[in-house]
Amino acid sequence: MENKVNCIFCKIANKEVESNIVYESNNIVAFLDVDPINEGHILVVPKEHYLDIEELPIKLLNEIMELSQRIVKALKDIYKPDGYSIMQNGGAFNEIGHFHLHIFPRYQNDGFGWKCTENEINVSQEIASNIRKSL
Amino acid sequence: MENKVNCIFCKIANKEVESNIVYESNNIVAFLDVDPINEGHILVVPKEHYLDIEELPIKLLNEIMELSQRIVKALKDIYKPDGYSIMQNGGAFNEIGHFHLHIFPRYQNDGFGWKCTENEINVSQEIASNIRKSL
Repeated sequence: MENKVNCIFCKIANKEVESNIVYESNNIVAFLDVDPINEGHILVVPKEHYLDIEELPIKLLNEIMELSQRIVKALKDIYKPDGYSIMQNGGAFNEIGHFHLHIFPRYQNDGFGWKCTENEINVSQEIASNIRKSL
Repeated sequence: MENKVNCIFCKIANKEVESNIVYESNNIVAFLDVDPINEGHILVVPKEHYLDIEELPIKLLNEIMELSQRIVKALKDIYKPDGYSIMQNGGAFNEIGHFHLHIFPRYQNDGFGWKCTENEINVSQEIASNIRKSL
């Protein structure tokens, strides 16, 4: 298991730092976010240190997603929310530097939302074609 | 292939409505979001009509996630962004009512972010234990 010194999520995976664990396997750990959007906000984390989604071995990503399905079901059972959100921020927007998937219940008027600029962003066949060729 | 009348994403999957497609297989289609956060904002959609992540057959979800890895790589190649975000909103927060995964490049100062309330939300072993037992 590769670990990175001073990575808080590596430390949680190794039990050097305590967390409120909801699930653990050989490869992944899921625990409560310490700064939740709503109660039941969970982070799903591979134990090994990866930054972005494309670095994850596909088997590991599949295990994370299968658990995510179970987590959404459990959150629905417990909290009867109006919905849920799943998010994963990569690169410079991963503040921890260790891959983590957010899953949390959502409620009408919970105040959560996206904010974005009013800038007009292009959408075109040319853009789509460019991405298609790079896949 | 089950479809829902008047669902815009079912219509896109069936080519009844045009979109800027970046990838297509028998099971999924990926195309440019018409209201992008940043250029290259893509929606990955199963062709069949599902609402929430736990409804998706695991094979279909795995195909979506494998494509997501390729999309993140392609967006990095093309746009050299500072990062990326992946999001999926379920239940009442899925405005279309048909499962879709957002993937888009991110930049420092792109104005995108989360907004949430200042309410104090509980985090405890009791909450974790409750979820653990429901998984």
